[in-house]
Amino acid sequence: MRVVIEEEKSSKCFYYPPFGSNQSSCLVWYEPARKLFKEVGADIDGDRIRFPRGMCRSIIQENAPSAFEQKARNPKRNITIGGNSTVFAPVYGPPFVRNLDQGRRYATIEDFRNFVKLAYMLPSLHHSGGTVCEPTDVPVNKRHFDMVYSHIKYSDKPFMGSVTHPDRAEDSVEMCKILFGADYVDQNTVLVNLINANSPMTFDETMLGASEVYARSNQASIVSPFILSGAMSPVTVAGTMAQILAEALAGIAFTQLVRPGSPVIFGTFSSSISMQSGAPTFGTPEPALVIYGCAELARRLGVPFRSGGSLCGSKITDAQAAYESSGTLLPTLMAGVNFVLHAAGWLEGGLVSGYEKLIMDADQLGMMEVFAGGYDLSENGQALQALREVGPGSHFLGCAHTQGNFKTAFYRSSVADNNSFEQWEAEGSQDATARANVIWKRMLNEYEAPPIDPAIDEALLDFIQTRKNSFADANY
Amino acid sequence: MRVVIEEEKSSKCFYYPPFGSNQSSCLVWYEPARKLFKEVGADIDGDRIRFPRGMCRSIIQENAPSAFEQKARNPKRNITIGGNSTVFAPVYGPPFVRNLDQGRRYATIEDFRNFVKLAYMLPSLHHSGGTVCEPTDVPVNKRHFDMVYSHIKYSDKPFMGSVTHPDRAEDSVEMCKILFGADYVDQNTVLVNLINANSPMTFDETMLGASEVYARSNQASIVSPFILSGAMSPVTVAGTMAQILAEALAGIAFTQLVRPGSPVIFGTFSSSISMQSGAPTFGTPEPALVIYGCAELARRLGVPFRSGGSLCGSKITDAQAAYESSGTLLPTLMAGVNFVLHAAGWLEGGLVSGYEKLIMDADQLGMMEVFAGGYDLSENGQALQALREVGPGSHFLGCAHTQGNFKTAFYRSSVADNNSFEQWEAEGSQDATARANVIWKRMLNEYEAPPIDPAIDEALLDFIQTRKNSFADANY
Repeated sequence: MRVVIEEEKSSKCFYYPPFGSNQSSCLVWYEPARKLFKEVGADIDGDRIRFPRGMCRSIIQENAPSAFEQKARNPKRNITIGGNSTVFAPVYGPPFVRNLDQGRRYATIEDFRNFVKLAYMLPSLHHSGGTVCEPTDVPVNKRHFDMVYSHIKYSDKPFMGSVTHPDRAEDSVEMCKILFGADYVDQNTVLVNLINANSPMTFDETMLGASEVYARSNQASIVSPFILSGAMSPVTVAGTMAQILAEALAGIAFTQLVRPGSPVIFGTFSSSISMQSGAPTFGTPEPALVIYGCAELARRLGVPFRSGGSLCGSKITDAQAAYESSGTLLPTLMAGVNFVLHAAGWLEGGLVSGYEKLIMDADQLGMMEVFAGGYDLSENGQALQALREVGPGSHFLGCAHTQGNFKTAFYRSSVADNNSFEQWEAEGSQDATARANVIWKRMLNEYEAPPIDPAIDEALLDFIQTRKNSFADANY
Repeated sequence: MRVVIEEEKSSKCFYYPPFGSNQSSCLVWYEPARKLFKEVGADIDGDRIRFPRGMCRSIIQENAPSAFEQKARNPKRNITIGGNSTVFAPVYGPPFVRNLDQGRRYATIEDFRNFVKLAYMLPSLHHSGGTVCEPTDVPVNKRHFDMVYSHIKYSDKPFMGSVTHPDRAEDSVEMCKILFGADYVDQNTVLVNLINANSPMTFDETMLGASEVYARSNQASIVSPFILSGAMSPVTVAGTMAQILAEALAGIAFTQLVRPGSPVIFGTFSSSISMQSGAPTFGTPEPALVIYGCAELARRLGVPFRSGGSLCGSKITDAQAAYESSGTLLPTLMAGVNFVLHAAGWLEGGLVSGYEKLIMDADQLGMMEVFAGGYDLSENGQALQALREVGPGSHFLGCAHTQGNFKTAFYRSSVADNNSFEQWEAEGSQDATARANVIWKRMLNEYEAPPIDPAIDEALLDFIQTRKNSFADANY
């Protein structure tokens, strides 16, 4: 489905990466982009732009910030994107949802709200994300209002704007101006937005148009070559990385021409395909190598990096889903990825947002946070007093050091069952999916919305109503 | 159950780690060890040995090899233990087995043979392991004959000897002399053997006795503090690492006093316990940090390191099992562990050897091998010709570079299902466990034993019969 999306956005803007030549070139239908690149000395030849080798890199290195802060409506939720920080955001884009009770079905706006509420309540998710699922019961050309409003209303974590049309990007910015104030939005980054390249070597005007709106408004674009190696890139890791770098350089440079210094993220979604069936595959080693390599290329370029997540091809939350998700998430963390979209809830190659999967993945994200925290080498951490107190042949269960530390000693999984086999069997031999099902239902029952100024809420609803009434429904 | 095993082996030999003092001290009942440590200048005080600080380290660094080769009866299967190499061996020790057809039950010698046959057929397992499961239908004091014979007969990969009594270690060595020849065994390492410390700070005479037999015979001991942090070590990572180092130093030094230069491995099994229930937990971040830290301590000491695996607490091959297994295995690989016991087949905290789990984990081990292989930066790997050939807005499926590389391009999972949802549903909506169940059954049907010299086989069977007839059955 992702592949189809890419093909729908086909070929309005081409460029050839600069390999083996002293130039890279780019076909551009999007007039503003052509104009901007011409102003900085690119050679315009009909629809094709040629720029001197290294031009994009220098534009980026002279202007783009290496890190920036995304503001949330609750300042405690502000996040740094770049440097040594890693931000976890939920799954993005699926038209379907799955849960244990109903199986797999089309997503609705109610599902969307549920995922926003759950992400708000899950401490290991730092971000509310964007299209946590497609609310297919709302017209395509109006659902962005409901999505952005849901992020504002049901969460106080930072969130993402719409990219499916420049006008929808404008609407997203306008709603943020109502929430934060116009000057604040112009001076601060309150939206991070997913701008996919249509790999290979293609950007479309929808993406460039939305990216232009956000850059002009000082909001962040994640310029993300969307790669399934073997289909949208070569079958080799190094070849895929070369293509990703070239695509990212062009897209990121564009944002810096629109507004020098505006926040931008080097992104890539990378996986492979089955060379037998052509189906996307996840959790395999080659994409993990791409993540490590591209994270290093982004650091070399000097901009924040987005990739990875808890990706899997499995249709259900079985062992395949978990192996594949961990096989993506651990390299994502270890590679030093700064912004992790799809960190929780991803199922079936991104076709499905999973309720139980969200809970399971969020549990793993909590573990990643502890893992990334490293070693406590304080005197208490070294625990030599405990070793002296307990001595050989005994145990540490009751010692003073254990008593003083046990509450925070070990990460406690919300999903894992560590009881004895007999107890587990007596309690119904439940698997992890069944336990996760209980957790998300309990959370939704206990959910309380974060407070919001009623005047702002009303202004947002008025804006949405006015805008929705100003044009007819359409499903494109 | 593991914990119980440790408690059964309680307190014959104590020592205090050298923290905060200029000495470490050790209570030793085992006369040969006391004698050996006295000869090198340790201070013997009744049952207690005190050695000058740094003594164990210098004994090890002056004598122990930093890497060695374990020989297999098929020279193509010889493996290097140490340096940059990582060896994957199957699960060790479970009294139970589980498969989808029969659920959980006590393991038999037939199960043992099945796991040896499967490990032999699985290319990602480099080693046949040791007690792949406990053959509970054979008397405890005689089952080591059947276990060692099964490794020799049904596989040609390197394997492990018995450690449950010094006599059983002698039997293991004798059987290897029949297989390899006495001089060859004296000059080459053909057995790697698991010598657990009874943490905290305890070794028993069974373990020291077996270790002495192996060291004298130039066979390798894995000196492994068995740690469930919070019970057998402090609740902190640094404290646990300090204890593990101290325990390993004492046990490794002993092997070098028995036979200087004999092969030895710094091992540790490390996990945590639930501070609510006391149950062991797996796949959590703290043990992963212990693996990274202890791997570095072993490199600093200059000996090979054993730890990690595909550990989990789950009773079944569900998402919990897979998350926890990956959460241990990926840090194991990235930490540079040299010998990975429990790399495949581990379930329920080591109480169960899983047929389906073995297949699933082995699939992951294959991915680790590709991941560890890193980047192909050859001209073909960089694939610039493919980028020129395909150009923008197209796809790479049919291009010459893809045609030339697709067969080896991506790791192909044996367990994952990447078909469309509709096809997967039409095929019965199977989960990963159901697919793994089909795989191990097909493998056992297709199994063919590696050839063995009939004279050697006969001599082994004669030796076993003679020895088995020389003493009565016992279950201890």
